[in-house]
Amino acid sequence: MRLGAFLSGSGAHGASWRHPAADADASLNVQRYVEYARALERGRFDALFLNDNVAVGSLDPQVLARSAHSLRWDPLTLLPALAMTTRHIGLVATANTSYNAPYNLARTFASLDHLSGGRAGWNLVTALIGGENFNRDEHLEHAERYQRAQEFFDVVSGLWDSWADDAFVRDKASGIWLDVTKMRVLDHQGRHFQVRGPLNAPRPLQGWPVIAQAGSSEAGRELAARTAELVFTAQQTLEQGRAFYVDLKERLARHGRDEEALKIFPGISPTVGRTLSEAEEKYQALQDLLDPQAQLKGLSYLLELGFDLSALPLDARVPLPEQVPSTERHKSRQQLVIDLIRRERPTVAQLLRSLSASGHKVLVGTPAQIVDELAAWYEAGAADGFNVLFTHLPGAIDDFVEQVVPQLQRVGLFRREYEGRSLRENLGLRRVANRYF
Amino acid sequence: MRLGAFLSGSGAHGASWRHPAADADASLNVQRYVEYARALERGRFDALFLNDNVAVGSLDPQVLARSAHSLRWDPLTLLPALAMTTRHIGLVATANTSYNAPYNLARTFASLDHLSGGRAGWNLVTALIGGENFNRDEHLEHAERYQRAQEFFDVVSGLWDSWADDAFVRDKASGIWLDVTKMRVLDHQGRHFQVRGPLNAPRPLQGWPVIAQAGSSEAGRELAARTAELVFTAQQTLEQGRAFYVDLKERLARHGRDEEALKIFPGISPTVGRTLSEAEEKYQALQDLLDPQAQLKGLSYLLELGFDLSALPLDARVPLPEQVPSTERHKSRQQLVIDLIRRERPTVAQLLRSLSASGHKVLVGTPAQIVDELAAWYEAGAADGFNVLFTHLPGAIDDFVEQVVPQLQRVGLFRREYEGRSLRENLGLRRVANRYF
Repeated sequence: MRLGAFLSGSGAHGASWRHPAADADASLNVQRYVEYARALERGRFDALFLNDNVAVGSLDPQVLARSAHSLRWDPLTLLPALAMTTRHIGLVATANTSYNAPYNLARTFASLDHLSGGRAGWNLVTALIGGENFNRDEHLEHAERYQRAQEFFDVVSGLWDSWADDAFVRDKASGIWLDVTKMRVLDHQGRHFQVRGPLNAPRPLQGWPVIAQAGSSEAGRELAARTAELVFTAQQTLEQGRAFYVDLKERLARHGRDEEALKIFPGISPTVGRTLSEAEEKYQALQDLLDPQAQLKGLSYLLELGFDLSALPLDARVPLPEQVPSTERHKSRQQLVIDLIRRERPTVAQLLRSLSASGHKVLVGTPAQIVDELAAWYEAGAADGFNVLFTHLPGAIDDFVEQVVPQLQRVGLFRREYEGRSLRENLGLRRVANRYF
Repeated sequence: MRLGAFLSGSGAHGASWRHPAADADASLNVQRYVEYARALERGRFDALFLNDNVAVGSLDPQVLARSAHSLRWDPLTLLPALAMTTRHIGLVATANTSYNAPYNLARTFASLDHLSGGRAGWNLVTALIGGENFNRDEHLEHAERYQRAQEFFDVVSGLWDSWADDAFVRDKASGIWLDVTKMRVLDHQGRHFQVRGPLNAPRPLQGWPVIAQAGSSEAGRELAARTAELVFTAQQTLEQGRAFYVDLKERLARHGRDEEALKIFPGISPTVGRTLSEAEEKYQALQDLLDPQAQLKGLSYLLELGFDLSALPLDARVPLPEQVPSTERHKSRQQLVIDLIRRERPTVAQLLRSLSASGHKVLVGTPAQIVDELAAWYEAGAADGFNVLFTHLPGAIDDFVEQVVPQLQRVGLFRREYEGRSLRENLGLRRVANRYF
């Protein structure tokens, strides 16, 4: 079993920054993230993932006043810093293919992979929001975003293969720096991109950084089946998780890839207590710090449910939403919520709880209960590992590392020491061969 | 007097990587740059500057085989790493306004400024080359690049002012994260950019990072007079340096700025010896490692002289070049070379020496001779400080820090300890006030 940590701000819960054991300044003070990364490394996590968005989101004053999401570290600035203060943990940056240039991102990840000693990963997203900050009236549409993403990936990975691993001979005596026969000029001419190359950076140490993705729509699954090596997914039940796992693994063969080439990490958001009731109290104390109105407005904005949840009483049953709107902005997360509402017919308060970790599974219990749940998913073939969304930082990391990880190690489900030096080696992924050399 | 270090690859000389005291793997091994930054900090340098380009450059196999310029660290990936391994030195990244999106760069520099404790600087360039890697058949033209740069700067600096310095109250008790009256939505609608904002990053610690520039053309000087706080320039003689200094400082008043708001750093490339002849021998030993043919081809490509220098014998006088071509790709550096050829009527070999540091002044001598030269420029009002282009890394840094800096300190021209905590404080630049709050 493998473990990733999905980090953002002061935690994954809407009220995380208000928790007494949370750093309210985590988005401003780099030392906080230095400490989180060290704690995760003590817990032998495979990787830490930095979430991202290229816009503040809803500008509704009621949402903004209480949400910590208006501030973010730039992942590709923070991770090089953390590379210098850690030795083993993988460093996965979210970066979008809609509002970046492939040449720039290819360089950045190549540099990050070198300076971290082969620990870089790229969480390739198409961006949920942000067009208004990048010369557009509207956010790019879903289908267009995915077409662009496919081509973007081809350009970036082509640029990474610009040089054979042994191209730079650097022979001081003869003055030969480069064996020019080991350079490949990409000369890409496509629908969205025209990029000559070669990249002015060495080939990444891992061949390519590890490619992560989180899309669950049809287009997202196809992109993942073709390109991803690590997939994060929000699944509420083991059955759904198993169905997603089987579907995605089956798609791999069509792209000439074997099952081991892609690892699937459902997200979980754990709250750990010595007893179940202690865990429930801890969780409820955090829920009580939420401002339901602001939270529900923010959810309604992100999910485009077609109605404003904040206008309903907390004990009212959530109405059945209409089908996904035709703009298809971020279909899979909307579908998850629609499924959940259909299946559970929750009240507004219950929905708020289920979505307190952005739709990822909320796990509240003792270390043994949490380990049992993770083991059940892992052994049923619904997960190769888990992406942990900590309710608040650093408190929830400490709880998990000190209480859950040792239990996972005792039952033989999780490593006691890192197996390899690169992120690929720890995840059990092969180094990527250069397509040209 | 202030000092910057302009770093790139294994040094600023065409044969730097071949020097016995140079690290040939400086573009691949981050520990090398960690050591350079520490050495510069021991020498009390104000800042280190990372040069950049978004293309390999000439793909002529003869040039490529022998030039180390095909590999570069991405400056905005390397500097966050160096921020964690240094405490005082300013960290200035070159980043271009032609092939980036302003929202992305504004975030990156805001993050870098926070994680370095207020030590970030942006060397704003319009890019010398690279269009072919960014969806263009041709590189953007000079005038178009500078128009775009002006607007790019306005957008980026507007985004940095998205939030008052005290906007994020983060009051756990009340649940108020943000004082929404202290947010400003930019809503920029211009010729090149349409950017709503606000930036999803806090205001930089320094208000804005220090803005550096290196353009010397008319358009470049005007952009600098309006926006720059630190200008690097290539000047071959004290008279030229003085004329440039006076011209640029005089322009400031027209933009409502005082003379202290902009510091001018001519570039120098020193070779230090205990005697002049030892210094000359050291310099000549490095020159002897150049392959003149490859070097001259590369120069002809970059400078667009209108003829191929490599076709001439080394002892031939360089013909008078034609006027600057109409494409105006990078006029100021071309003009410098034309002026030099007119003034000195050099042989090809002499030109190769004068341009061995990309047109920056080559200084060969004893520590006392070098200090005398720097003092003369400084006292004549031709320089507020100098940007040092080291011939090779780390050898030339060690020579300068151990031999020249102590001499500068003894004569009272240079600091013994850092004055402040931020780059602005060390450079004697004011923190930028928020235009909105």
